[in-house]
Amino acid sequence: MIIPTFDDMIAAHERIKPHIHKTPILTSSFFNALTGAELFFKCENFQKAGVFKARGASNAVFSLGDDMLEKGVATHSSGNHALSLSYAAGRRNIPCTVVMPRTAPQAKKDAVKGYGGKIIECEPSTSSREATFAEVVAETGAEFVHPYNDHRVIAGQGTCARELVEQVENLDAVVAPIGGGGMVSGTCLTLSNIAPNIEIYAAEPEQADDAARSFKAGHIIADDAPDTIADGLKVPLKDLTWHFVSNHVTDILTVSEQEIIDAMKLIWKRMKIVMEPSSAVPLATIIKNKEVFAGKRVGIIITGGNVDLDLLPWLNT
Amino acid sequence: MIIPTFDDMIAAHERIKPHIHKTPILTSSFFNALTGAELFFKCENFQKAGVFKARGASNAVFSLGDDMLEKGVATHSSGNHALSLSYAAGRRNIPCTVVMPRTAPQAKKDAVKGYGGKIIECEPSTSSREATFAEVVAETGAEFVHPYNDHRVIAGQGTCARELVEQVENLDAVVAPIGGGGMVSGTCLTLSNIAPNIEIYAAEPEQADDAARSFKAGHIIADDAPDTIADGLKVPLKDLTWHFVSNHVTDILTVSEQEIIDAMKLIWKRMKIVMEPSSAVPLATIIKNKEVFAGKRVGIIITGGNVDLDLLPWLNT
Repeated sequence: MIIPTFDDMIAAHERIKPHIHKTPILTSSFFNALTGAELFFKCENFQKAGVFKARGASNAVFSLGDDMLEKGVATHSSGNHALSLSYAAGRRNIPCTVVMPRTAPQAKKDAVKGYGGKIIECEPSTSSREATFAEVVAETGAEFVHPYNDHRVIAGQGTCARELVEQVENLDAVVAPIGGGGMVSGTCLTLSNIAPNIEIYAAEPEQADDAARSFKAGHIIADDAPDTIADGLKVPLKDLTWHFVSNHVTDILTVSEQEIIDAMKLIWKRMKIVMEPSSAVPLATIIKNKEVFAGKRVGIIITGGNVDLDLLPWLNT
Repeated sequence: MIIPTFDDMIAAHERIKPHIHKTPILTSSFFNALTGAELFFKCENFQKAGVFKARGASNAVFSLGDDMLEKGVATHSSGNHALSLSYAAGRRNIPCTVVMPRTAPQAKKDAVKGYGGKIIECEPSTSSREATFAEVVAETGAEFVHPYNDHRVIAGQGTCARELVEQVENLDAVVAPIGGGGMVSGTCLTLSNIAPNIEIYAAEPEQADDAARSFKAGHIIADDAPDTIADGLKVPLKDLTWHFVSNHVTDILTVSEQEIIDAMKLIWKRMKIVMEPSSAVPLATIIKNKEVFAGKRVGIIITGGNVDLDLLPWLNT
């Protein structure tokens, strides 16, 4: 396990700056009044590839040695990491191979191809995915970039919190959604070094609350197949992200599916931004736990905006 | 007819600054590649009340004399002007009465009430609306603020173009949607004074193309009841807006309903912003008329973001 350092995050930031947006902060007097807190929304839904993961993927791709450029990078993902790694590889003009279940939405496959990624399809099972991925790596010799349990990826994600504290003074707390823990770990890495007084909260769906249970238990608990509308948050913690979460997170708060949907729709309606269900989880936890955040200056990471506009969750409820 | 001057716009800007957002500019490498132009999106969907009309309404409300404060303001509108005038009146803590058809969507009525406006319902006909509004004015003595054919409103809308040219250097053209012509008139007022070389294009639905036909004919043509998904653009030009449009607009371009819906969905998908059908009309015209805009630096006014999230147009096509 290679634990990224603060200097790794600083180096990552220099490395990826030409390839990412410094995303804006939005505020909302409506949500300030609703929550009693002063909220600052860090809009990674406006990030390249539509998600904060462009940061970590870009750092992994642009820190590859010259000897790896011909072989490129590979990963397995049917979601935002696939998009982000394809985006970053395209910027460096190196091959990117993504193993995706053949049942993945066509829109996601098209998006990966749009960024120049190559898709190898597998059956929608863990065994098929792992076998297929092993073949891909054996054939291509490509560098595996894990979606979150990777020191380069976490150093990249940490650049988001660095921008946030530059953009907003005197924050009391930051709230980010937690799935595998990549964004939260990057936030811990950065804030524990430059702003250790800022509390870090992770926000998680009740129906995929393995991180919250891990946090209480003091060791990683991984669920087999959690089901939540916040599709970016179904994956479990791994050793590297557990290291950061267990050492630096103040608390992990959970919310119901309906609370996520309600918060998501309210953000779209009042703030006029398109964001994913996962990104609504932090605000939902703040609305649910007003006493924790009232009177505080709180940064909220809006992690991404890649949502299927034909399948909006409130249209089915 | 009182024609607002450049100094009126400058005074409006000072007057309304505490009550409006200086909205951000977004860019999109995707849309630059698609159109061959360099596009700068002025995001008035992030404006107070969700629409640029907060500018003109705020200017009208905050330029009222002290003798009118008790009587307040009134208008008839079932849309963004009702919201914006209610917002502005609420900021000055004066009464605002809005005549709305009883058939208007409950969400719009709730939004007006949420900003402190008082609703008087009428039947959904011009005769009922005019009779009801006359009664309201007779009873309250309130100041009528027309949605666009008002010098205070146009001076207020002109502040948007002033911000735009401060935020983006060396624009070649600006494209804004046209309904009654309030935003376009404000844009003409400002640019004809400070940047007369910037071309001003108006963008209109084919199914409500009265402004385009007026522009060609050289006099105002008003349609009775045009039907378009761009519900903010159904109203006709009036004498004051015609003055600006006929003197300063380069051309008025039109697009089909499907072109509007396609552009709207593509903006939501790629730029992650929530905006109204009306606001998609400019980009739709640029996509349709690439030869007009290729190689140019073009400002696009995203006029507003008040859309019913339960009734998105692409879900019915």
